[in-house]
Amino acid sequence: MKRPTIADIARRAGVSKGAVSYALNGQPGVSAATRQRIIAIAEEIGFNPNSAARALSGATSNAVGLTLCRPARTLGIEPFFMELISGVEAELSARSYALTLQVVADPDAEIAVFRRWWGERRVDGVLVCDLRVDDRRVPVLEQLQLPAMVIGGPGHTGALANLWVDDAAALVEAVEYLVALGHRRIARVGGLPGLLHTEIRTRAFTDLRDRLGLSQAVTVPSDYTGEEGGRATRRLLSSPDRPTAILYDNDVMAVAGLAVAQEMGLAVPADLSIVAWDDSALCRLVHPALTALGRDIPAYGTHAARRLLAVIAGGPADGFQDQNAHLTPRGSTGPAPRDS
Amino acid sequence: MKRPTIADIARRAGVSKGAVSYALNGQPGVSAATRQRIIAIAEEIGFNPNSAARALSGATSNAVGLTLCRPARTLGIEPFFMELISGVEAELSARSYALTLQVVADPDAEIAVFRRWWGERRVDGVLVCDLRVDDRRVPVLEQLQLPAMVIGGPGHTGALANLWVDDAAALVEAVEYLVALGHRRIARVGGLPGLLHTEIRTRAFTDLRDRLGLSQAVTVPSDYTGEEGGRATRRLLSSPDRPTAILYDNDVMAVAGLAVAQEMGLAVPADLSIVAWDDSALCRLVHPALTALGRDIPAYGTHAARRLLAVIAGGPADGFQDQNAHLTPRGSTGPAPRDS
Repeated sequence: MKRPTIADIARRAGVSKGAVSYALNGQPGVSAATRQRIIAIAEEIGFNPNSAARALSGATSNAVGLTLCRPARTLGIEPFFMELISGVEAELSARSYALTLQVVADPDAEIAVFRRWWGERRVDGVLVCDLRVDDRRVPVLEQLQLPAMVIGGPGHTGALANLWVDDAAALVEAVEYLVALGHRRIARVGGLPGLLHTEIRTRAFTDLRDRLGLSQAVTVPSDYTGEEGGRATRRLLSSPDRPTAILYDNDVMAVAGLAVAQEMGLAVPADLSIVAWDDSALCRLVHPALTALGRDIPAYGTHAARRLLAVIAGGPADGFQDQNAHLTPRGSTGPAPRDS
Repeated sequence: MKRPTIADIARRAGVSKGAVSYALNGQPGVSAATRQRIIAIAEEIGFNPNSAARALSGATSNAVGLTLCRPARTLGIEPFFMELISGVEAELSARSYALTLQVVADPDAEIAVFRRWWGERRVDGVLVCDLRVDDRRVPVLEQLQLPAMVIGGPGHTGALANLWVDDAAALVEAVEYLVALGHRRIARVGGLPGLLHTEIRTRAFTDLRDRLGLSQAVTVPSDYTGEEGGRATRRLLSSPDRPTAILYDNDVMAVAGLAVAQEMGLAVPADLSIVAWDDSALCRLVHPALTALGRDIPAYGTHAARRLLAVIAGGPADGFQDQNAHLTPRGSTGPAPRDS
């Protein structure tokens, strides 16, 4: 693993290290054209002149970076990230590593943060969340040679290390349970399209629909917010052939779905069964408590941090499968209504 | 503002800087007794020998530290902290500062983190949450001369800068509204005892009870979790003279209280009115949506970060009052039941 240095810029530009230093510090001694070329190369390889002293010192930062690409006000309510962070933190603290956090607006901003962090050697490595199909961050991280651990997969992680769970298997477990309870009209309110795990779940749901002959098993795409989850539920429950069971891609949308059922006068689970994904305290906070696909998210964060530290220490960038989610039945699921 | 240096240790120990260096690096040249004394002084003033080079370089870290002293699994569900962090982040990112986060188990661990961060110059300043009555962190931060911004008050912040809101005024607004709706038996499920804002709210509630002659206005202490909030609600609603309105010190407990009312067959708001403190998306996620005392928490975080950066830049450590919370009535409050 190698961080950009003044020597790298000098080599690429075909000039001396002194010339690079002059150019980056705005001192005379290089032509305007050379200065521009040097600055362009420095930006390209993620070298930050302001932190040159730190970057040149060769010291590690003993910090790990985590970017969160979600609207600030959404982050507040979804337990997943804070649980993940608390697990990451547990491992980092025990190893005297700090966690540097940045909330970003979009993937471009996220990539810029990676470049800056690495250029300024603010972090020794990064955790990558919300893996997308053909994720643009992956080739950038490969090119920067910034140690990284992708929380997601399988696939679409290039040469980067990753930690993943089998979302398709969990989805099958939940849907087969609903089918065993007599449900045939099963809908799913999905998470953000384009995220790899959303796509994996959607494909598994479609395959299962075909295999079990559930003609009405539709996925309504959503964005993980309560507003959208509630809206999708209202639409589903307003259709003449309304579903008797709905599976939600996160806990927040499932709680919103329960509220919509109550608002529309439907009893849960007598008229409608509800299953949440990513069990959390939120699922046990409402009445009836929600049946949920759960796994130990703090432990997932701890494993990811541990494996990232191994990569930082020079270990191989492997892929690992973590513990799958399993179904915990609670009061929100029951037999399908007789007339359904 | 001054960071501990080898010279400080030398002065306190009455030895040369060279002797300090020998002692801290485990080299010969000082007696065992002197070595022990030097190490003790270094620990006391928060000097970390491992990061001596960085500390001596005089560079700023361009990072701000935030410790969260809550159980990891509780943090996940309470929107307050993530909303606060997102607001802090917005300001820090705009100023090219990083946020370093650490989840700690208790105030002692928190103080140890402050000492380490400052000794290793990992941060230029810290944000202090969950201010307690006679908070032990305050004198330590004063002694370390670590730039700090306390999110809390008024009072109990010593010489540190702080940002606070008038919780007593917000409590009066909520309770007077319930009294205007005809409620006389009003209970409050309080947050963690010992936290300054909990104590301020409890005192204001007691004063108001005496002023308005609400003989049964009791505060049941709790810990902000849904479990405890639900338990406290179950106890209150099981009493012969059960309250007709309950005010909760956070949104999570209020949602749990709504679930307990539903579980016990009480209609909200016909039988029981519910008011949540710290309005959040969670309050709008349930049915009926919760009447709540709300303010802009991300903005609060932004203001705190902005003022901390001013203190880091050498500004005065002043106290500031931020925008108070105000009541947003929703479906969970209504007139007191006739027979109450």
